[in-house]
Amino acid sequence: MGEFGLIRRITAGFRPSEATVVGPGDDAAVLSTSDGRVVASTDLLVENRHFRRDWSTANDIGRKAAARNFADVVAMGAQPSALLVGLAVPPDLEVSWVDGLSAGFAEECGEVGAVVIGGDLSSADSVTIAVTALGDLQGREPVRQSGARPGDVVAVTGRLGWAAAGFAVLSRGFRSPVQMVNAHRRPEPPYAEGPRAAEMGATAMTDVSDGLLADLGHIAEASGVRIDLRSASLAPHSKLRDVSAALNVDPLTWVLTGGDDYALAATFPSTLRLPAEWTTVGSVTAATEGGIGVRVDGLRWTTSDGLRSGGGHEHFR
Amino acid sequence: MGEFGLIRRITAGFRPSEATVVGPGDDAAVLSTSDGRVVASTDLLVENRHFRRDWSTANDIGRKAAARNFADVVAMGAQPSALLVGLAVPPDLEVSWVDGLSAGFAEECGEVGAVVIGGDLSSADSVTIAVTALGDLQGREPVRQSGARPGDVVAVTGRLGWAAAGFAVLSRGFRSPVQMVNAHRRPEPPYAEGPRAAEMGATAMTDVSDGLLADLGHIAEASGVRIDLRSASLAPHSKLRDVSAALNVDPLTWVLTGGDDYALAATFPSTLRLPAEWTTVGSVTAATEGGIGVRVDGLRWTTSDGLRSGGGHEHFR
Repeated sequence: MGEFGLIRRITAGFRPSEATVVGPGDDAAVLSTSDGRVVASTDLLVENRHFRRDWSTANDIGRKAAARNFADVVAMGAQPSALLVGLAVPPDLEVSWVDGLSAGFAEECGEVGAVVIGGDLSSADSVTIAVTALGDLQGREPVRQSGARPGDVVAVTGRLGWAAAGFAVLSRGFRSPVQMVNAHRRPEPPYAEGPRAAEMGATAMTDVSDGLLADLGHIAEASGVRIDLRSASLAPHSKLRDVSAALNVDPLTWVLTGGDDYALAATFPSTLRLPAEWTTVGSVTAATEGGIGVRVDGLRWTTSDGLRSGGGHEHFR
Repeated sequence: MGEFGLIRRITAGFRPSEATVVGPGDDAAVLSTSDGRVVASTDLLVENRHFRRDWSTANDIGRKAAARNFADVVAMGAQPSALLVGLAVPPDLEVSWVDGLSAGFAEECGEVGAVVIGGDLSSADSVTIAVTALGDLQGREPVRQSGARPGDVVAVTGRLGWAAAGFAVLSRGFRSPVQMVNAHRRPEPPYAEGPRAAEMGATAMTDVSDGLLADLGHIAEASGVRIDLRSASLAPHSKLRDVSAALNVDPLTWVLTGGDDYALAATFPSTLRLPAEWTTVGSVTAATEGGIGVRVDGLRWTTSDGLRSGGGHEHFR
C-alpha cells in the first residue's frame, strides 16, 4: 500500500487535539504549547532487543512504546501532548500488525490526551520503532534529576518489579501468572502523578525505566547526594513473592533492579505530607567523599553473583 | 563504554542554545519557543536502505540525517532549533564511527543554529538512526502543502537531480565526479529560503525529498489543483548533463524525479517579484475533473520504461 497509505493508517483515527496547529501529512507538524515551552523525549526500539513479536501483540508493543516516552515526559512534571512515530518494518509484514501497533499508540495516547502528529515509514529487516513524545509543562517548572537535597524524602508511585517478573516468567517459557506477564507487555505508568508531584513541590523526579537503583542513581549523581532506601518500605507485593518463590528468585531484586514498569521516583521536602499514591521509601543525605550513590539499608546493593549492580534495563540477549 | 557514555559523546560539544531550558541528560529535554508553537518532524534511517557506510563517512551520514529533517522544518517556514537523536548500532561498531556521526550532527546543527537536546542509544544488527527536528516559526504562519491557488506561480530553490546523479555514479562503482557524489553524500538544503519564502507570502511549500514531481504532486493533491511545469525552465546544469551523457541517462529524469537534494519548491502569488535565489518553473491552474496532479509541458511524465512515474525516493534495493 506504500508509505503514505501506511502512515495514514498510523495517524488515522486521531482527531487533532486543540493543540494541533498542523497535524500529520505535511512536511512537519505544528503544535501549540500553553506556556511557550515544549518537553521532548525520544526512544528507539528494536525488535528482539526491546520487544518480541512472539511475546507481545502489536497493540501491546504500540502501547508500551508510547508509554515509555510519556513516562519520560510526566517525569519532568509535564502533560504529554503529542507523539511522532518512525517505523521501519520488513516488507512482508502483515498490514494487520501495523494496524495493531497503530491502535496501541492510539489507546495509550488516549490515556493521556495526546495525539499522533507525525510519522515516517520505511523498510528494515526487523521491526524498528522510533518514538518522540512532546509535552506541555502548563506553566510548571520542570522537575530535574539534579534537584534532590539533603533532608528530602524519597518516594515512589506505580509498580516496581512487576515487568521484571513478567519478563522472567516469559523467559522461562511460561505464560502465567498473566498479571505479571501483562505488566511486562503493557506497563501502566502513573501518568497523573508526574504533574501532581511537580505541583506538590518535588525537588527531583525520574521515571523508573532502568530499575529503581539505577534511576535513583542518576538522581544521586546529578544532585551530588546519597540516597538511602529502606528495604522494609519496598516489601514486594504478595503476587510478586508468589512468582519469585516459584522461580526461586529474590523478589527484592526485581523491585530494586527491574525496569520497564515506568513507575515514578521523586524526592520531596520532608515537610510535605504526601498523598496515598506515593510511598516513602528512603531519604536523601549529604554525600561524604565517594559517597554519592544509592544504599539499601545502609549497604551498596550487590547481586547474588557478587557483582555490584547498578541495576539496568533488561534487553533481550 | 555504555549507553550514557556514548550519549554524552553524541551530545557533547553542544553548548545549550538560548532556547534550551533543559538539555540532554535528564528524562526529557525542555525547549522554549518564541511564539508558543513548535514545529516537529521525524525520520527513521536504516543502514543499506537510506545510507551505506561504504559510500558515506559517518560525518556525512550525520549531516544528511540532520539535513533532511531540518529541510522539513524550513519547508514549513520555520527556523530549526533542536534535534533529538535515537541511535541503534551493532555492538562491535567502532566508537570513532559514532564520534564521526556526532560531529556530522553538530556541523549540520551549526548551519542552522540548532542544538542536540536529547538522545537514546541501543544495539541493533545494523545502524539505525532516528532523528526528530524541532523548529520555531518565530511568529510566521506555517506554510502548508494545501495552500496553492490557481494563478500562483511555482518556484524552486536549491539543487535538483544532483544527489540522484551522485547515487547513479556510486551505484555503477564510480567515485567521481566528486561534485555529484558529494551532493548525494551531503546535501546542502537552502535553509534560509524557507523562512524567507514564508515571509514573502508563499502559499504552499515543501522540501524536495522524494523528487520534484512527487513532492509537487503532494502539493497538487493537498491543494486540489493542477501544477504545470515547463521543462525549459528546469534545464539541467551543465555538470549534470556531462554525467548523464557518460551514463547514458536523460538528465531531466534526475531533475524531475531525483530525491535527496532537499531543494525547496513553493507556490507564490504571481504578483510577487521573487528574489534571484528562486527560479520560476511553472504555474498553478484549477484542476478539471481528474486533473489534479503535475504536468510537464502539458503531459503527464512517463519514465522511459513506460510506467507513469510519481517520482519517488531512491532507496538502496
